[in-house]
Amino acid sequence: MTTTPPSAEAREDTLRVHVPLRERAYDILIGRGLLDAAGARIAPLGARRAAIVSDETVAPLYADRLIAGLAERGIGSATILVPPGEASKSYESLARVCDAVLAARVERGDLVVALGGGVIGDLAGFAAAIVRRGMRFVQIPTTLLAQVDSSVGGKTGINSRHGKNLVGAFHQPSLVLADTSLLDTLPPRELKAGYAEVVKYGLIDDAPFFDWCEANWFGILSGGPERDFAVARSCEAKAAVVARDEREDGDRALLNLGHTFAHALERAVGYDAGRLVHGEAVAIGMALAFRFSEKLDFCSRQDAHRVEDHLTEAGLPTRLQDVPGGCGSADWLLDAMGQDKKVKDGALTFILARGIGQSFIAKGVPADKVKKFLVGELYA
Amino acid sequence: MTTTPPSAEAREDTLRVHVPLRERAYDILIGRGLLDAAGARIAPLGARRAAIVSDETVAPLYADRLIAGLAERGIGSATILVPPGEASKSYESLARVCDAVLAARVERGDLVVALGGGVIGDLAGFAAAIVRRGMRFVQIPTTLLAQVDSSVGGKTGINSRHGKNLVGAFHQPSLVLADTSLLDTLPPRELKAGYAEVVKYGLIDDAPFFDWCEANWFGILSGGPERDFAVARSCEAKAAVVARDEREDGDRALLNLGHTFAHALERAVGYDAGRLVHGEAVAIGMALAFRFSEKLDFCSRQDAHRVEDHLTEAGLPTRLQDVPGGCGSADWLLDAMGQDKKVKDGALTFILARGIGQSFIAKGVPADKVKKFLVGELYA
Repeated sequence: MTTTPPSAEAREDTLRVHVPLRERAYDILIGRGLLDAAGARIAPLGARRAAIVSDETVAPLYADRLIAGLAERGIGSATILVPPGEASKSYESLARVCDAVLAARVERGDLVVALGGGVIGDLAGFAAAIVRRGMRFVQIPTTLLAQVDSSVGGKTGINSRHGKNLVGAFHQPSLVLADTSLLDTLPPRELKAGYAEVVKYGLIDDAPFFDWCEANWFGILSGGPERDFAVARSCEAKAAVVARDEREDGDRALLNLGHTFAHALERAVGYDAGRLVHGEAVAIGMALAFRFSEKLDFCSRQDAHRVEDHLTEAGLPTRLQDVPGGCGSADWLLDAMGQDKKVKDGALTFILARGIGQSFIAKGVPADKVKKFLVGELYA
Repeated sequence: MTTTPPSAEAREDTLRVHVPLRERAYDILIGRGLLDAAGARIAPLGARRAAIVSDETVAPLYADRLIAGLAERGIGSATILVPPGEASKSYESLARVCDAVLAARVERGDLVVALGGGVIGDLAGFAAAIVRRGMRFVQIPTTLLAQVDSSVGGKTGINSRHGKNLVGAFHQPSLVLADTSLLDTLPPRELKAGYAEVVKYGLIDDAPFFDWCEANWFGILSGGPERDFAVARSCEAKAAVVARDEREDGDRALLNLGHTFAHALERAVGYDAGRLVHGEAVAIGMALAFRFSEKLDFCSRQDAHRVEDHLTEAGLPTRLQDVPGGCGSADWLLDAMGQDKKVKDGALTFILARGIGQSFIAKGVPADKVKKFLVGELYA
């Protein structure tokens, strides 16, 4: 693939992104109508049965179509439901899902299928990683965020009372089916939040893709052919990073652009999705990362403005003041960031940028510079 | 190493078995006094802190010595205790241990240390596999069974209500310290049960080691230098199999010699260790596997007798009649075996033998032959 937008004909086609992880390599298929074709796509994996994990919001919309598609190809299934929302990423839900997968009489060669957003992907993927010490799983992500983020990388897990995603496994799916037509019914706020992660891939290392996003964002959100291309390009970008650094020892940290700020903001609102969802926090975090890069003389004012303007145009927040109910003091935010990424001798690690598409890992950023920047932002 | 018994001088030395799993390679050190030297042995791993997982029986005996040894080398520690026994291999214990590891403020570069028998190794190893998506861990096995079996292979896990070890991970330790002096205080019954797994390695593919066991079993049980050698030889034998087949797709099944029968017997007594511990079930299972091999004309009567005689001499059970309280009918046992290893079209997979040291994977053993054999055994 290149960053050239697809032609009209391409709309009929399914896009394919290969994630090259040697014996754990797999494909992500992107297109409209993949849910109904799931049986045909999954059959080559050779499974006899599938344990479908979904939530009580998504399952009524899509589970029947998936079950029918699998049955057409002779694949039996059992459906396992958990309540929607982050609270399902718990030890208790994990135990329930693992026991239900075992009760579903799926064998080691069979499949776990995750049908839902990021929570379902993380939970079902983790269950697949540990039931019988590892079963194959297929992801059918139903949100834009899950399609462009969770479907690549193999990170699965649950939350502990000590923090988010602190217990989990690296477990790669065998196949990802990103049916972009499922996003047509997604609430606009969730769609825009997912779009923040699309923009992120341009900002990290692909300036032409950011240009393309500026020109095509409306098509992505409204379900034009641009959407399929944007999902594919995002998966491809993430796959390239993950292939270089599967276990997150180096380069993969670039994917955290905006996330050190974002995690502190999510903590500030007590992970209340009513006030701030993850993608909105990332949008603010990316705008902050570029303005901070500007303050530290890494990045031009022009590029920092362009980032902010585009996120605003797409309906995303970009300022600390945009957090409903406020986000705490500079000291509080700094402390929250310190918990996320280790503060070593008063210094933090950030993803900063020399410009759009030119991000880098900045180690040893002095805490007092971060604080000064945050004070300036809070009273801007 | 060779199967030559160690000389008197070697007693002063620590034996070393290297487990060659590429980037997951590690060493098993075997000898008397390794617990007190744990700080010096663990220090090269470069950890700052260790979360020690142990049980309420083992910790009062050994935890202080381990903590002191680590402190000598500047490694801080926190101790996490669970009740002794198989019941601790539960979702609830796993959640408690994971949260306690996180509360102990160990970072990704730090360690989980498993101090105890097989239950602690399985539980702590699984927690290490999933906390922060994988932490390094060190095993200090305190039973003979754990030293010769659980310390090699990387299988970790817990039980589900659907069966034993059905939820877990493959996670290799960074180091194993098998202090053979810790076995001096082990109840004789547990020591003998562990010895069954030592004998197993001879029976699988090393007839000279079985000969050596026949001549030296008393030294192994009584704590002579033969014990260190037997532990090292067993670890080496298992390491060779695991290195060929880390994820248990082929050859590794040979390690299940005696285990298909054993698991059915453990099920028959409701996993009541008062009636039958795992090693005792394995002893009966191995004797059955050889007698069954004899019945099927794979193995000589002489070799089947030798196996039975040696196990009996070492104080281990070898007959279905040896199970206190009985073990159910042939049909019941056959059904229990079917749940353990899949029955395909009325046929089972067994590990059988053409003689001592000549075991092989026998697929497609007809269920009616197994039943006939079991009936004969029950009424022998």
